[in-house]
Amino acid sequence: MTLVCTGTIGIDTVQTPDSGERADILGGSCTYFSAAASFYGPVRIVAAVGDDFPPEHVETIRHFKGIDIAGLETRAGSKTFRWGGRYHDNMDHRDTLFTELGVLEEAPPTVPEAYRDSGVVFLANSHPSIQAGMLEQLPNRKLAVADTMDLWIEIARAELDGLLGKVDGLVLNYDEAEQFTGKKNTVAAGRHMLDHGPRFVVIKKGEHGAILVHRDGIAALPAYPAEQVVDPTGAGDSFAGGMMGAIARELSVDASLDPGSFDTIRRAMAHGTVVASFNIEAFSLERLATLTVDELDARFREYGAMMHLG
Amino acid sequence: MTLVCTGTIGIDTVQTPDSGERADILGGSCTYFSAAASFYGPVRIVAAVGDDFPPEHVETIRHFKGIDIAGLETRAGSKTFRWGGRYHDNMDHRDTLFTELGVLEEAPPTVPEAYRDSGVVFLANSHPSIQAGMLEQLPNRKLAVADTMDLWIEIARAELDGLLGKVDGLVLNYDEAEQFTGKKNTVAAGRHMLDHGPRFVVIKKGEHGAILVHRDGIAALPAYPAEQVVDPTGAGDSFAGGMMGAIARELSVDASLDPGSFDTIRRAMAHGTVVASFNIEAFSLERLATLTVDELDARFREYGAMMHLG
Repeated sequence: MTLVCTGTIGIDTVQTPDSGERADILGGSCTYFSAAASFYGPVRIVAAVGDDFPPEHVETIRHFKGIDIAGLETRAGSKTFRWGGRYHDNMDHRDTLFTELGVLEEAPPTVPEAYRDSGVVFLANSHPSIQAGMLEQLPNRKLAVADTMDLWIEIARAELDGLLGKVDGLVLNYDEAEQFTGKKNTVAAGRHMLDHGPRFVVIKKGEHGAILVHRDGIAALPAYPAEQVVDPTGAGDSFAGGMMGAIARELSVDASLDPGSFDTIRRAMAHGTVVASFNIEAFSLERLATLTVDELDARFREYGAMMHLG
Repeated sequence: MTLVCTGTIGIDTVQTPDSGERADILGGSCTYFSAAASFYGPVRIVAAVGDDFPPEHVETIRHFKGIDIAGLETRAGSKTFRWGGRYHDNMDHRDTLFTELGVLEEAPPTVPEAYRDSGVVFLANSHPSIQAGMLEQLPNRKLAVADTMDLWIEIARAELDGLLGKVDGLVLNYDEAEQFTGKKNTVAAGRHMLDHGPRFVVIKKGEHGAILVHRDGIAALPAYPAEQVVDPTGAGDSFAGGMMGAIARELSVDASLDPGSFDTIRRAMAHGTVVASFNIEAFSLERLATLTVDELDARFREYGAMMHLG
């Protein structure tokens, strides 16, 4: 079952308290997602950039052999999405320094005809109406998961509620789950969101791991205990990429699998946790670009052993 | 190997945002610790109360059959330690409303002669000089673990540094680890504390679980995902009680066990996590008083299954 991701490909400027600053580096939700997912199998991307998008960033994306860039539109006369952010001391909070929407203010990219058979769909953070429009172009999906953020909870709540009736799962941050539901207890917030339609909610807590609230059960997983965090940008997107990539891989082995079952999502979250733990070891995609499958497998085993009770 | 705990037995007043307020309920670090530990085997307590200590609170402690109260001193003319606190909305932070030290301002209790053979020692939070004095009275220990808090890091740093050279392990809260070391990364903070002598540090993160930083490895464990938290008071002490109780139980089965090994501590932390998850379901010891071994075992299996990757 082929995985497809819709989202942004952007140019980031990142300031960190301990690791310095980097300007004009490759970023974007779809970028981090697809690079992480590519370790588990093929991944298609639907995104747009302007003609200012540097060729070396295209090369970086091409470096990940599993990424299919047929759905990447380069628009003449348009500007690539740019984002600048500064991390606070604890690396878990950040301020946005600037946002230049560029192509994000134009019509969303079109899902290529060749992508319409995609079975596993991830809608990276975007306006919920755009996410819903993407979903309509992917009629053969067996599993659809959407990410969202505080902005849409605030300004597009009705559209977001509508989207929740159309997806199998929602991914969002800890504080956003509270913002969405008014509930401070994470499990209670998750259950509340299930009432809007999805079968499961994955609540990301950064350095504190993630919680799965599913109609069939609850699970908490810790983050891999990282000693040094260089740049947390893309942690959530690479987590989602590992998670969705692992699900697509399982489906490709066993087409009869229920891809949204409690245990499938739970185990997939562990893969997302581990690949994200590599992503934060360097700026942009620098660590994922050098990551080997052996390193990934070794840390996954270490992560499993760390929690194994028997 | 018998477990002994030194610490406080007190009378608490607790205000919560959602569950109301309770006055003059049984509390104290040694109380929560020993009640939790008693599910795993016998536990001796060394603590003092005044003659104002209510008989019904003594009955509650006696209800836990594994607790040996030979080391509980009731002092004529003295006042029991009292604490009042108010929890904030997220239940992970609290303000102290009042503290009446009472017996804690007097000489510390003496370790009974019959307790001197105790093999597993937990020094609940207290002035590090008092903790060191207790340790001297327990010459046959195979494992000693101390808890501490922000106050001693601030006003008794030299004594605390000295204590760290005498114990095998230290337990403290997430924010206190940063306060102690100036390091915001939890693993880095833990490693820094190992330089002061202990073999391992357990960093408690409340609803986000706990991290073990041990000379032989690092592990992170999530909290059991609780949907309703009535009163978090004693969560850390009951966690420590379950952890130390589980270690003592393992030692009683296999006297050749290294009680401070990475894997022993890691698995013991899982027991602490699960017993603490019951403690917070009610005020004071109300939930632990009704808890059955079957309930405890069932949740431990559920917790292990939640994290099992295979």
